[in-house]
Amino acid sequence: MTEIAKPTLDDIRRAAEAIKGHVVRTPFVAAPRLAKQLGLASLRVKLENQQFTGSFKDRGSYYKLRSLSADEAKRGVIAMSAGNHAQGVAYHAQRLGIPATIVMPEGTPFTKIERTASFGPRVILKGDSIDAAAVYARELAAKENLVFVHPYDDPYIVAGQGTIGLEILEDDPELDYLVIPIGGGGLISGIATAVKALKPGIDIYGVESDLYPSMHHAINQIPPANGGQTLADGIAVKSPGALTRAIVEQHVREVLLVDEMTVERAVGALVETQRIVAEGAGAAALAAIMCHPGAFKGCRVGIVVGGGNIDSRLLSQILMRTLVLDGRMATLRIEIVDQPGVMSTLTRVIGQAGGNIMDITHHRLFVDLPVKRAEVDVLVETRNAKHVDEIIDMLDKTGFPTRRLSSHSAEG
Amino acid sequence: MTEIAKPTLDDIRRAAEAIKGHVVRTPFVAAPRLAKQLGLASLRVKLENQQFTGSFKDRGSYYKLRSLSADEAKRGVIAMSAGNHAQGVAYHAQRLGIPATIVMPEGTPFTKIERTASFGPRVILKGDSIDAAAVYARELAAKENLVFVHPYDDPYIVAGQGTIGLEILEDDPELDYLVIPIGGGGLISGIATAVKALKPGIDIYGVESDLYPSMHHAINQIPPANGGQTLADGIAVKSPGALTRAIVEQHVREVLLVDEMTVERAVGALVETQRIVAEGAGAAALAAIMCHPGAFKGCRVGIVVGGGNIDSRLLSQILMRTLVLDGRMATLRIEIVDQPGVMSTLTRVIGQAGGNIMDITHHRLFVDLPVKRAEVDVLVETRNAKHVDEIIDMLDKTGFPTRRLSSHSAEG
Repeated sequence: MTEIAKPTLDDIRRAAEAIKGHVVRTPFVAAPRLAKQLGLASLRVKLENQQFTGSFKDRGSYYKLRSLSADEAKRGVIAMSAGNHAQGVAYHAQRLGIPATIVMPEGTPFTKIERTASFGPRVILKGDSIDAAAVYARELAAKENLVFVHPYDDPYIVAGQGTIGLEILEDDPELDYLVIPIGGGGLISGIATAVKALKPGIDIYGVESDLYPSMHHAINQIPPANGGQTLADGIAVKSPGALTRAIVEQHVREVLLVDEMTVERAVGALVETQRIVAEGAGAAALAAIMCHPGAFKGCRVGIVVGGGNIDSRLLSQILMRTLVLDGRMATLRIEIVDQPGVMSTLTRVIGQAGGNIMDITHHRLFVDLPVKRAEVDVLVETRNAKHVDEIIDMLDKTGFPTRRLSSHSAEG
Repeated sequence: MTEIAKPTLDDIRRAAEAIKGHVVRTPFVAAPRLAKQLGLASLRVKLENQQFTGSFKDRGSYYKLRSLSADEAKRGVIAMSAGNHAQGVAYHAQRLGIPATIVMPEGTPFTKIERTASFGPRVILKGDSIDAAAVYARELAAKENLVFVHPYDDPYIVAGQGTIGLEILEDDPELDYLVIPIGGGGLISGIATAVKALKPGIDIYGVESDLYPSMHHAINQIPPANGGQTLADGIAVKSPGALTRAIVEQHVREVLLVDEMTVERAVGALVETQRIVAEGAGAAALAAIMCHPGAFKGCRVGIVVGGGNIDSRLLSQILMRTLVLDGRMATLRIEIVDQPGVMSTLTRVIGQAGGNIMDITHHRLFVDLPVKRAEVDVLVETRNAKHVDEIIDMLDKTGFPTRRLSSHSAEG
């Protein structure tokens, strides 16, 4: 493989000039409430979810497409992606009048196909995996003489994403740390190149899902070990780029790993506390601070929320699960005598204890109970974990043996 | 009642100087995707949900408290609110070391009490309504010689909220229209005073819930008619302020009314399309454009998202309901023969038609069916309303009489 030249600060400045007015200059908002919860001196959040296609991919895609020769632009481009890269390339190709082909793996969720297709590219569903789709896209590029737009291992893409670094330092030159998610590594490489050139004293941390620690393992000489379903699917990349890996090795202090549960809590915290919507990969940087609070205590930290393209159903579920984890909702299994009037007593006890009943399900066929007894599962809205315990206690005392089915976290 | 002097542009500039560094200078983000959907030339959204306590109330509260005399600050302040005003006053009083009392009506949701209490004020739950709580707060203010901080009918509060207008024009001087929610009218009065002084050509629209059209009715000489449960509880105010009404009459072109369903859709659209979290009142301005698309077509419009303090459970429900309305989720009631193997066939048909089954409930006791038949309700994830019809058609053809229980909108 021939080595690709690393982009320089000047390259990134040229990119910033080129994308101006075509890509959103996103806010870098203060998150004082989260900062307080996490024990930081300050926290700022770069809202790349405010880009037109909902992620930072707009930057690199636009800059790459703008940099094509007239001949290349005429031939057209091809990209392979099931996610944000597909939308970024398709949207800006349409705006620039460049023919675009997007290859997506078979089984890509319909909403993602539909969103990409809405920008008018030729969409091809091919391959039973990301890898297979990528092979096909390369073949088609060669066959039809199309320009292949790589999602990260391309100096124009890296320079485009790097414009985020310039904006961050413009808005807050006083940062101690920057925490940035890593998928293929394009985002962090670009930002690190810009920031380290302008302010070498800032330490930059990368973040990966512990299910896809590809960059972490590569730079630490650990054999690859990727796999599993992750909420942070936007950064579930099996092998880091060559260019991006070289830049990460040069500029990034450490790659932190985050677990699924913390990513989920970070998505919930961004909605509840900062009132913004992040996809799992977008919330990974916040999750990293939650997982490693000691590393950042008392410091001025900036994080990048790379994207906000999360399915509404998933987000809805995460919000409900967050309530359960925090003890603000609980499912109780309650043993009752199966006779008239009992439900009235039961619900009165719960109501008097301050619980708001949301759902009741009866079980009459559980044979480990005497036939005259039954069990009901009651979903209750509560104030906190202590309140759940109080309600259970009250029920036990009034003759309704009760146990909690849902779990909540220790802090809840 | 003695007349209160209207704040001037200079008053608002003084407020801006005073709040600098103590209140978030919020972003005014471009919303190109929503603009396109609504047929606008451009749309920008002022993100007051990014304030520390989650709403614009931080501005007026801080400025009012900062403007107290040393003697007043020592005596302390009192405010009555079940919502954002309570949090704004409590938070900034704590920061400024001013003793604060917050009166909230009995029955205020626990999370709102808890959030306010977390800033350390004396919290008193009193009165079975907002009106009763307000009477009590006034009495207590007189008795204990506390400064009553009115939520809107106060020139300092109005000047504080008016700083939003200065920031809006700094960020985008080219607007044609501004659309701003109205509760008591403090937000719109302040912004209108600033904007109309600097750029008289901008037309300002107010927005109220059609359940609480108090300002609309007052300025149009219609008798008051308020009441009902509204998602936009932050602007459910029964009588507009005297000061704010005078300013609205002077500067606001028209007060638009929005219905509950559109407010709900606007909350959903802000999450799905702009990836930000707005409370009902915060989404009211977007709802107004959705309700009156003709009035804004082809124009450059700015809206204010005043706050993002929405309960997670409510938001979760809105996201799911949005999916149902858009035909991306549907509940189907399907008649089956109650015998082994039938469920397998049924679920195979749905799967082959591309529907993702999320929940199945059996009904065996509906006596309008022969005893050998049963009904199941199936919750299915679908692509759109057309897809729902296709699945129903497929089920009907394979011997499963089916009807849709959930409804979806015409556009879905």
